[in-house]
Amino acid sequence: MDRREHLTVVDGLQISNWSRPVLEELRVGGVSAVNATCAVWENAADTLRSIGTWLDLVNRNPDLVFLASSGADIETAKEQGRIAVFLGFQNASPFEDDYRYVELFHRLGVRIAQLTYNNQNLLGSGCFEANDAGLTRYGRVIVQEMNRVGMLIDLSHVGYRTSRDAIEASSVPVSITHSNPLWFYDTPRNKPHDVIAPLVDRGGVIGCCLYPTVSGGQSLTMDRFCSMVARMTDQYGPTSVGIGSDCTRGWTQEFVGWLRNGRWNPVDPQDAPTWPAWPDWFTGPTDFPRLAEGLSVAGLNDQTVAAVMGGNWGRLFAEIMDETKEPAHV
Amino acid sequence: MDRREHLTVVDGLQISNWSRPVLEELRVGGVSAVNATCAVWENAADTLRSIGTWLDLVNRNPDLVFLASSGADIETAKEQGRIAVFLGFQNASPFEDDYRYVELFHRLGVRIAQLTYNNQNLLGSGCFEANDAGLTRYGRVIVQEMNRVGMLIDLSHVGYRTSRDAIEASSVPVSITHSNPLWFYDTPRNKPHDVIAPLVDRGGVIGCCLYPTVSGGQSLTMDRFCSMVARMTDQYGPTSVGIGSDCTRGWTQEFVGWLRNGRWNPVDPQDAPTWPAWPDWFTGPTDFPRLAEGLSVAGLNDQTVAAVMGGNWGRLFAEIMDETKEPAHV
Repeated sequence: MDRREHLTVVDGLQISNWSRPVLEELRVGGVSAVNATCAVWENAADTLRSIGTWLDLVNRNPDLVFLASSGADIETAKEQGRIAVFLGFQNASPFEDDYRYVELFHRLGVRIAQLTYNNQNLLGSGCFEANDAGLTRYGRVIVQEMNRVGMLIDLSHVGYRTSRDAIEASSVPVSITHSNPLWFYDTPRNKPHDVIAPLVDRGGVIGCCLYPTVSGGQSLTMDRFCSMVARMTDQYGPTSVGIGSDCTRGWTQEFVGWLRNGRWNPVDPQDAPTWPAWPDWFTGPTDFPRLAEGLSVAGLNDQTVAAVMGGNWGRLFAEIMDETKEPAHV
Repeated sequence: MDRREHLTVVDGLQISNWSRPVLEELRVGGVSAVNATCAVWENAADTLRSIGTWLDLVNRNPDLVFLASSGADIETAKEQGRIAVFLGFQNASPFEDDYRYVELFHRLGVRIAQLTYNNQNLLGSGCFEANDAGLTRYGRVIVQEMNRVGMLIDLSHVGYRTSRDAIEASSVPVSITHSNPLWFYDTPRNKPHDVIAPLVDRGGVIGCCLYPTVSGGQSLTMDRFCSMVARMTDQYGPTSVGIGSDCTRGWTQEFVGWLRNGRWNPVDPQDAPTWPAWPDWFTGPTDFPRLAEGLSVAGLNDQTVAAVMGGNWGRLFAEIMDETKEPAHV
């Protein structure tokens, strides 16, 4: 348990239905910071309400949680035994068609945004489109804006070509907060070498993901997952790999239908999707200590375990968010 | 003038700042029906306001104008000496991410919608993107919905690959309301043969366009334009060609900046665009009689002049809008 106290755990992504009990799970699991999704298909107005709900939750539970604005907040959270919440988008839908919304949402606490979610949007292609034409005219404007204000770019659900374009267009490192390498499990949600390599070459971090549909389902063993993480640290270096659990706590069945089909796809309620089952050894945020043990068993030294469990996210978040930014648009 | 009385003039597109004086110009020019743009970059809420403004205008000027819902309304307008306004979108932005908005806006009077405007959107690529990956997952849903409710698809500002995909995906003919062939004037806004040919093969209509940036500017002669139209009717058949003037009456200079850059592009006000100058022989809707004369001079027979000046739009509008549609989504 000595090791655990020295570990600062940062989860690259969770998309839970947040409440005090769900937040308590993070504290039990020793998680000090999390990228918490507050928009998936939402437009600007819906996202304001979503962030408003977060303000309520934070104001009512100041002993447990606060909204983070900088990488330095992670160590503050660790020291205080609280949770630093980095508000994140899994889609650029809240920016709508207005580049000014990047700065507006940054001022409201949003620090991480995925450029696309599964589908094509105004910025580029999502990973489930048949064709990907890369970063769009507006996408280039938004990458520049996110760089300027200090908002971390996330490429987890982004198409491969759009991802490569964004890595190149960004003047600072970018992230894949919750995906695995394609060789580990074959799905458009996971990433080929020619996306991961340029990302880590420029200082980015990829968060290995436990969500069943990208890691192999309920039968995934701790050994198999941790060996994959170990291979990633060997291949891309110990400073390039993190964890993005993609935990989805507290939701009804309806929510998985919202994630898959939003408002865009007419699906008969009879065909509505259901949540996938998680492996027994990692069912939620309370199992982070077990994951850290597994990484040690898989051969990672203590320093690399600490880097993967949170240190790398901490370094990247600080690099993107803590710099003094230009006060206004050119 | 006998010929003019027998001509039913339909303009494939105007994007004017509508008022009684602007509508009077159409009456002076003998225009009985027009596809009037009520959204370019607007979202659903903004478009409701835009249609609300139309309701005011129509309610205050019933002697002059009414909102059309079917192709049959064109002849009614001609008989009554009024103008049938077909509300149209130049972008799918009012549909946002919700396929149900197609039927909702149809119920509000919208009968024509362009799939994209210059840029990539949720449905496909606009004509000014560097790369076009074709119709998206959501784009296929929307094409199906537009077919179902009876809303005409417009591809004028759409990218070539997305256009070809949409022509193929649509179960009914589609339109290019305001573009010229690429050979006539080289701009991504004009269309290559491999877009026009499949469109007309399936019963679609292309409206030749007088807007200066797609037709050659102020120096465009009537002879040059009308000869192009004549060549189009030779190549694609007399039932496949119409006129889409793209008249932009009554606007301030600021509006052209909105058209070009919306909210998506940070442009210094010093670099704001200005309206292009129109040729002397066609400066607005009052010059439609002159255009009809020019087509005769260019060698079109009376029947073809009538088809190009409005008959072809009338046939297509009726085919798309007047069929009995399925009452509800499958």
